[in-house]
Amino acid sequence: SDIKKIAVIDGDGIGPEVVAEAKKVLRKTEELFGYQFEIEHGLFGGIAIDEKGTPLPQETLEMCKNSDAVLLGAVGGPKWDNNSKELRPETGLLGIRKELGLFSNIRPAVVFDCLKEASTLKPEVLDGTDLIVVRELTGGIYFGEKFRRNTEFGEEAVDTCAYNVMEVERIVRQAFEIAKTRRKKLASVDKANVLESSRLWRETVNRLAPEYPDVELEHVLVDNCAMQLLRRPSSFDVIVTENMFGDILSDEAAMLTGSIGMLSSASLGEGSFGLYEPVHGSAPDIAGQGKANPIATILSVALMFKLSFGYQKAGDLIEKAVKNVLDYGHRTGDISTDQTNVLSTSQMGDQIIAAM
Amino acid sequence: SDIKKIAVIDGDGIGPEVVAEAKKVLRKTEELFGYQFEIEHGLFGGIAIDEKGTPLPQETLEMCKNSDAVLLGAVGGPKWDNNSKELRPETGLLGIRKELGLFSNIRPAVVFDCLKEASTLKPEVLDGTDLIVVRELTGGIYFGEKFRRNTEFGEEAVDTCAYNVMEVERIVRQAFEIAKTRRKKLASVDKANVLESSRLWRETVNRLAPEYPDVELEHVLVDNCAMQLLRRPSSFDVIVTENMFGDILSDEAAMLTGSIGMLSSASLGEGSFGLYEPVHGSAPDIAGQGKANPIATILSVALMFKLSFGYQKAGDLIEKAVKNVLDYGHRTGDISTDQTNVLSTSQMGDQIIAAM
Ligand SMILES: CC(C)[C@H](C(=O)O)[C@@H](O)C(=O)O
Ligand SMILES: CC(C)[C@H](C(=O)O)[C@@H](O)C(=O)O
Repeated sequence: SDIKKIAVIDGDGIGPEVVAEAKKVLRKTEELFGYQFEIEHGLFGGIAIDEKGTPLPQETLEMCKNSDAVLLGAVGGPKWDNNSKELRPETGLLGIRKELGLFSNIRPAVVFDCLKEASTLKPEVLDGTDLIVVRELTGGIYFGEKFRRNTEFGEEAVDTCAYNVMEVERIVRQAFEIAKTRRKKLASVDKANVLESSRLWRETVNRLAPEYPDVELEHVLVDNCAMQLLRRPSSFDVIVTENMFGDILSDEAAMLTGSIGMLSSASLGEGSFGLYEPVHGSAPDIAGQGKANPIATILSVALMFKLSFGYQKAGDLIEKAVKNVLDYGHRTGDISTDQTNVLSTSQMGDQIIAAM
Repeated sequence: SDIKKIAVIDGDGIGPEVVAEAKKVLRKTEELFGYQFEIEHGLFGGIAIDEKGTPLPQETLEMCKNSDAVLLGAVGGPKWDNNSKELRPETGLLGIRKELGLFSNIRPAVVFDCLKEASTLKPEVLDGTDLIVVRELTGGIYFGEKFRRNTEFGEEAVDTCAYNVMEVERIVRQAFEIAKTRRKKLASVDKANVLESSRLWRETVNRLAPEYPDVELEHVLVDNCAMQLLRRPSSFDVIVTENMFGDILSDEAAMLTGSIGMLSSASLGEGSFGLYEPVHGSAPDIAGQGKANPIATILSVALMFKLSFGYQKAGDLIEKAVKNVLDYGHRTGDISTDQTNVLSTSQMGDQIIAAM
């Protein structure tokens, strides 16, 4: 059928507030384009720990599995930071990625003109920066065997980082495909001068490369990449890397745009299913005060439309509405230089809907 | 005796040129302070692969072990990049660290006034940035078991990251001690929300912290640290972290200062022995042309004086001479905005000696 099922997870902190605005946008597109969305809600993260005793309740997982896409607000907060591993929001996050087979995390790092000044980088360095980090999300040291043992030097903790050819191939192919639709440059990031898993990674990339002759490939060592992102951010197009390196580099890339509060992300598996969420965190300090900026979550809906539903036009419309509202000068507190006339979370949502 | 034995390793690329200037500085301090240095040379890195068939010949290792400190130029280059593991310069680097017990890599990231403009960060963000990354250098995923095996998903490569309490304690104590001599702030960086080795790391840091009540401790997740280095570099004082995270973050920190061509580093073990080297690489593209900047290597000598020999005054003098020469306007090509009147490598060395 043409009814799309969306599993909505408010999560913690500002999650419920920003998701509420994204839902308004979903409803608006039903009106404008005749789409039909069936929205279900599930508990996840800190609130699920409080109410269900686990960060990822079985019914939430089932709900996600039975949906066409998931929209996630934000999870976590200091309240749960000192919990034991099984009772931490992060454990739910790792669990949902693995259970839903979301092996690819797509993080566009773009500069919003109105936020250029918010970056700590010089504007001329930032000019033209528009990159995507494609991070492997269900392998590597995140999911390898972990244990402790006693040694003559005291207790020892061990983590294992493993990658097999299939895992590397599927993420690298996806990155090549994305690069093909863009500026046709792919930087594969590894630490092949030290790690065996990076050597397998690089061999695999080199084996696939001839299938993508129109994409210019470079191998960049992770330490060098951390430098080059600072030195020449605009020269990157698509960056593909393993889980741990991707965690670090995608955050660095997001921060250097100055637009971190506006960035959306997609986590994808095989097929069109995906989980969409803002890059920013749950900001418990401003939760419940109507101060949060809903734009990153609204742009996550646009990404969902494009990547999971094939609703290109509606996705474009949302992005354009956001741009217009910003061009008009509307701001939430986090992106305002002049704190006298800022919009609340719901006012910003309303403006975007009006602009659509 | 009061004769200090220094093992000098020219290495590859610009290594011999920059080391030659550092040796002039060593000789100058003999003249000025009555010191006596016994300098021995050894082959290491790419040149050792070419001449001896191994990046770390046994006689070089012995020479280092019999010395009070090691001065290293730079190693590596594209010539050896596709060699098998045993015939790569990096393998020599990892070997020398392990064999000499250099478990601690100290990387000051400071901003040289005359180079402030070279940074891609806004000057006002950079203001006051003066931090040290203390990186664990002989443990973690760099030195853990590595292997390949076959799986139903194709070949799999495995790396192991292990840390025991002793390894964490010694590096963390060193970082606390360094912080005590500075602004008394320590950021311990880990990924305790995911890695078992990070959880052991954090427990150990927390257990030691009460012994350093005057040092303000914060725990920072590695992804967040990659962001905060960009956001608020001047707020960091000492950062301590494990090997792989330290590799990435120390390069990010160095690059954001804009002064990477001027930064020195020390690798230390127990006791006063240390290996000193510039942070920059071997720059094969300009090797042999007298274009290299010798300042980072000369400042590595200053670091050696202070950390290994207790020659505080001579170390200060070298640093001051460098500052004066820069203030006077002398530049090598890499740090000059006006390419008309740049000094050669040896001219820069001569100016620094004259200023001493
Ligand atoms: C919360 C944490 C487990 C998670 C990760 O490291 O993957 C987060 O940093 C992210 O990037 O989504
Ligand atoms: C060359 C490489 C093995 C080395 C490392 O990763 O330690 C280098 O990047 C460094 O930081 O000294």
